[in-house]
Amino acid sequence: MLTAAARDKLAQVSTATITTVLFKRGLRNQFLQGPQVVNPRAPRLVGPAYTLRYIPAREDIDVLKVFEDRSHPQRKGVEECPAGAVFVVDSRGDPRAASAGGILITRLMRRGCAGAVSDGGFRDTPEIAQMDWPVYHVRPSAPTNLIHHHAVDLNVPIGCGGVAVYPGDIMVGDGEGVVCIPAHIAEEVATEAFEQTVYEDFVQEQVDGGAGLFGLYPMIDPATRERFLAWRKAKGR
Amino acid sequence: MLTAAARDKLAQVSTATITTVLFKRGLRNQFLQGPQVVNPRAPRLVGPAYTLRYIPAREDIDVLKVFEDRSHPQRKGVEECPAGAVFVVDSRGDPRAASAGGILITRLMRRGCAGAVSDGGFRDTPEIAQMDWPVYHVRPSAPTNLIHHHAVDLNVPIGCGGVAVYPGDIMVGDGEGVVCIPAHIAEEVATEAFEQTVYEDFVQEQVDGGAGLFGLYPMIDPATRERFLAWRKAKGR
Amino acid sequence: MLTAAARDKLAQVSTATITTVLFKRGLRNQFLQGPQVVNPRAPRLVGPAYTLRYIPAREDIDVLKVFEDRSHPQRKGVEECPAGAVFVVDSRGDPRAASAGGILITRLMRRGCAGAVSDGGFRDTPEIAQMDWPVYHVRPSAPTNLIHHHAVDLNVPIGCGGVAVYPGDIMVGDGEGVVCIPAHIAEEVATEAFEQTVYEDFVQEQVDGGAGLFGLYPMIDPATRERFLAWRKAKGR
Amino acid sequence: MLTAAARDKLAQVSTATITTVLFKRGLRNQFLQGPQVVNPRAPRLVGPAYTLRYIPAREDIDVLKVFEDRSHPQRKGVEECPAGAVFVVDSRGDPRAASAGGILITRLMRRGCAGAVSDGGFRDTPEIAQMDWPVYHVRPSAPTNLIHHHAVDLNVPIGCGGVAVYPGDIMVGDGEGVVCIPAHIAEEVATEAFEQTVYEDFVQEQVDGGAGLFGLYPMIDPATRERFLAWRKAKGR
Amino acid sequence: MLTAAARDKLAQVSTATITTVLFKRGLRNQFLQGPQVVNPRAPRLVGPAYTLRYIPAREDIDVLKVFEDRSHPQRKGVEECPAGAVFVVDSRGDPRAASAGGILITRLMRRGCAGAVSDGGFRDTPEIAQMDWPVYHVRPSAPTNLIHHHAVDLNVPIGCGGVAVYPGDIMVGDGEGVVCIPAHIAEEVATEAFEQTVYEDFVQEQVDGGAGLFGLYPMIDPATRERFLAWRKAKGR
Amino acid sequence: MLTAAARDKLAQVSTATITTVLFKRGLRNQFLQGPQVVNPRAPRLVGPAYTLRYIPAREDIDVLKVFEDRSHPQRKGVEECPAGAVFVVDSRGDPRAASAGGILITRLMRRGCAGAVSDGGFRDTPEIAQMDWPVYHVRPSAPTNLIHHHAVDLNVPIGCGGVAVYPGDIMVGDGEGVVCIPAHIAEEVATEAFEQTVYEDFVQEQVDGGAGLFGLYPMIDPATRERFLAWRKAKGR
Repeated sequence: MLTAAARDKLAQVSTATITTVLFKRGLRNQFLQGPQVVNPRAPRLVGPAYTLRYIPAREDIDVLKVFEDRSHPQRKGVEECPAGAVFVVDSRGDPRAASAGGILITRLMRRGCAGAVSDGGFRDTPEIAQMDWPVYHVRPSAPTNLIHHHAVDLNVPIGCGGVAVYPGDIMVGDGEGVVCIPAHIAEEVATEAFEQTVYEDFVQEQVDGGAGLFGLYPMIDPATRERFLAWRKAKGR
Repeated sequence: MLTAAARDKLAQVSTATITTVLFKRGLRNQFLQGPQVVNPRAPRLVGPAYTLRYIPAREDIDVLKVFEDRSHPQRKGVEECPAGAVFVVDSRGDPRAASAGGILITRLMRRGCAGAVSDGGFRDTPEIAQMDWPVYHVRPSAPTNLIHHHAVDLNVPIGCGGVAVYPGDIMVGDGEGVVCIPAHIAEEVATEAFEQTVYEDFVQEQVDGGAGLFGLYPMIDPATRERFLAWRKAKGR
Repeated sequence: MLTAAARDKLAQVSTATITTVLFKRGLRNQFLQGPQVVNPRAPRLVGPAYTLRYIPAREDIDVLKVFEDRSHPQRKGVEECPAGAVFVVDSRGDPRAASAGGILITRLMRRGCAGAVSDGGFRDTPEIAQMDWPVYHVRPSAPTNLIHHHAVDLNVPIGCGGVAVYPGDIMVGDGEGVVCIPAHIAEEVATEAFEQTVYEDFVQEQVDGGAGLFGLYPMIDPATRERFLAWRKAKGR
Repeated sequence: MLTAAARDKLAQVSTATITTVLFKRGLRNQFLQGPQVVNPRAPRLVGPAYTLRYIPAREDIDVLKVFEDRSHPQRKGVEECPAGAVFVVDSRGDPRAASAGGILITRLMRRGCAGAVSDGGFRDTPEIAQMDWPVYHVRPSAPTNLIHHHAVDLNVPIGCGGVAVYPGDIMVGDGEGVVCIPAHIAEEVATEAFEQTVYEDFVQEQVDGGAGLFGLYPMIDPATRERFLAWRKAKGR
Repeated sequence: MLTAAARDKLAQVSTATITTVLFKRGLRNQFLQGPQVVNPRAPRLVGPAYTLRYIPAREDIDVLKVFEDRSHPQRKGVEECPAGAVFVVDSRGDPRAASAGGILITRLMRRGCAGAVSDGGFRDTPEIAQMDWPVYHVRPSAPTNLIHHHAVDLNVPIGCGGVAVYPGDIMVGDGEGVVCIPAHIAEEVATEAFEQTVYEDFVQEQVDGGAGLFGLYPMIDPATRERFLAWRKAKGR
Repeated sequence: MLTAAARDKLAQVSTATITTVLFKRGLRNQFLQGPQVVNPRAPRLVGPAYTLRYIPAREDIDVLKVFEDRSHPQRKGVEECPAGAVFVVDSRGDPRAASAGGILITRLMRRGCAGAVSDGGFRDTPEIAQMDWPVYHVRPSAPTNLIHHHAVDLNVPIGCGGVAVYPGDIMVGDGEGVVCIPAHIAEEVATEAFEQTVYEDFVQEQVDGGAGLFGLYPMIDPATRERFLAWRKAKGR
């Protein structure tokens, strides 16, 4: 379970910084390749993963009537994804048919979920783009999901954007994309990423003011360290 | 020939809804994969397809001088595409060279055509992006079309975005992309998509207000049906 | 060395027009395939190429500690790229890890460089998107460059977006993408593209006013020539 | 459960013929895209699917030590795949690391399984190519599976080569590739494919002897029908 | 019309040598990217192109019944492709469904055609691989062509493997692939490629015997020229 | 410098085994993705890398005349690649034009080099396929290299098949593909891979004889260890 403090920190750091913190721990493949934000003005995405797994569709099984069944995993998942959780869909990287559409996205939002991510495409994206709720996908995809996708499992480990996503892993998204933090290190990653962000903000300010990179980025010079600590104190961070 | 009423309806429904209506008729591959709108503020795209077919260029044939010939299919097509029609280009999915540029797009617009679609890329897209006229392509492409494309045929059946497009098929585009409706069912698809949109708007409003999916989407509960009919009456739709 | 006059002309012509001028000289592959502008409100990109070459990373070599070394090519290149030059990165078309990030981009900007181009992806793109300085890449990429890229060479001939880029070649970017002009013909290309732009502006205006393409685009009719010369005189161009 | 008679028939018909029989039933996507036979001299592949599902690997989980655990799905699956069954692996179409290698393939063979299929790649393929046991994959892949694959599930529905494979579906492979027949129609598909093969053999013989296609392929002329029946009788088929 | 002498020469030179001869004439894109030989023991492929154009299939049009129609372009083309001609299929580079199968290939062979080429895939390839008749494709494809391909035109200009193929262009295939020689230069290309082959055979023999490349390949040294002429005379070539 | 003993060991182990040994050292990306052997009957490939770097071609620079220049890197490299070394070409993964052809391959062979590897394609592959000398590439490619490749550097670090290759790294190839061993660990990798191969041969024999995987692969049971040591002694390995 992510503490509120960690969640708050993760909402203030970039996915770029998080990948560096994960890289220090030997994790090189946690950024989802492909998914980009549909609605850039939405708040940051932070929350534990709740997953939906698709396999390819088959014409005799994947017919419109399946949606009348309350146990259909796509619909059931939308109704059961916990508040605060991120709905993460393994679409096998296939955006030829929709992973879901505006109505289901709205339902997830109203149920208090934290966001939605697919390595395929969502439909009704012109409407989703106006929502105040973070959604990530590869590209818009109008065709109904039944054409290429069969919902088969809920909340099992999946692949999404080439990354292993285990239920409960912490998904964080910003304007650059989505990173998956293994659950058991989410707290420490939040803390370290937050600290690193303070230093990067200092560096950014220095460089924007004309400073060179050497000794500053990364920090090597002891004098730099002094200046940073003074800056941090002054900023109250 | 599309009636004005059908055209009007198609301008109010989404490509997502249309793909579902087509799916009910066994048509699973009518949404063009790849093309996205260049100018998001342009009006909706609706109109019959008028097609241009490209094959790969050959250096000795595809030289600048060809454009002096009034029978060159690209230029001829731009001058002959009927008012109200959509100029659809089979670029073999290749955006390495332009399918056409700003001047030809302007000419199509001024001649009263309804829009342009390519599964390659257009050039002069910064200017096209400002136009009030719908243009769809895969990505911007500055190089002159002669480098990779040879215009060879006008108004023959083509592939575009992996979809069969026959002259006269009705192309509909929104912020999500472009769908091709076979000409002989365009009227009935327009009617059904319009009806389905009324229901989806109702569902969207209900879900946005906190309703769950089961029984509502799809409509199963008779009570839901009652509520919908009352809502529709109240809305005058 | 590009003259100020040529630079000024190149800042006023489109990459599309430049590719046509290059095509007349038998150069068919000078537009970078893939890179698009990160910050559409930035000024136009014009300047000679200063290059960085990446090869794939290796886990034992590409560790965070390398950045402490002042001779590390990525950092050294950012500090040595001349004012007015464009930092062009051969990322082997691989956007899975960043080519560089916001701090380095800021440093290049503050050092007076003219812009940055990669056929991979940059990180910190939400911040870069707000900068007033032109940056081109394929897609956002949060992961630190060490995961997939090893910086190996500075200012050698490279490939970028499938195009040969020699140090000193003139890179020009607009809202459509980036074109590479071989250094030895940059002056004449600037002049010819500028002239061609005047004519295209005339054509665009004519076509926007209702004129047809034949005889006008390309110019064949002598009467058209007369009208053009009059128009140009009137416009003072 | 496939009857011995049906199994025998499926071993005598081509995957091409089976796809036509499936197409008549509205099933258009049952041929695995990508997998090709490793050992062309092996016997035909026929048997029910037993599946293994991979997701992307994660560095801290997928270490060599996992193979010491008897419940590790890859090893457990190899020991539990029933005699007569086909070991089908969902490698997410990723051949960058091996799906399995020669020792596991040997174990499956010795345990009496019917064959192995992956939409990734196997390792030790020079040895596998010499075996008398049918194995299909996309391309050889030396790297150990832990680098990119994490075995997560046994005998659940999967995607393989873009096709839905449910446990128990009948996999049939020949020199062209692998087709998946839904379990509930396997008997009737076997019968119809066998019958169709008799006719196609007749057609092939006729065409090889100089006959034209019209009236013969497909059979329309009644006279052709007569000749076919006589031929069939003579051949005792 | 290709003379018998030219045809004979083309059957003795490699596609590699032909691409060099075409490159000297400014033709850089005549080698089909993708198609490889199905039956390596078949004789060389030489002959004028007779083309079939596919577009994507549509479910309501592309049904098995279409083959009963004698005007169906695929079947009509197989019956009308002239003796000596090469049946070249534009499959839009899509091998997911077959371009044609063993029976049609047999018919083309028995009708005296020179070979078949597709930038998709053929079915019944285990049988085709045994034929003494040259067939080229991208990879085996069992599914019936109706699933993804609609035959629409015969003997029009097409793209195949990214190359423009005009009816009558001379197709030449060897163990490396297929090259398309524009009809109007086929004679001169045959002659020049034949001459160049003589020299390359000389070079190959020299290098195999220990000679270095400089001065020899390309021929610069006058002494080399002398030796070559003597060798040629001795060989009677 | 690789010792003769290590070289001898590497010629007896598989690339699969080597990737496992490298994986134990944290090196996950040393197997070249794409290149496959052209001539399966050639001896094993073992030797230090000597590299050639290509960038994209430019029409005005890459003309046939360049080959008359003795300093042209492609030709110079072929004449200077040391005996025993492997000629490794960075073709940017682009097989649209040849990396080199039969004459240059012959020259390398006759000069005593150990083999050739490209992540593009070679030409004259029907002849190369008959040679007794190991060559690896992605697919045959007839077009002359000048069409897409410009040779720019010799013996610098390159990427090949997505792998970093430094001059002097040890390349090992078998029927599965090519692995690159960093020079400084080549000796220890050779030793460990050789040892591991002995055990794998034992396991393979056991499994082929009916043994199960557990306890054996990997070796956990002490009894297994006993049996292995006895087997090894008996085999004299």
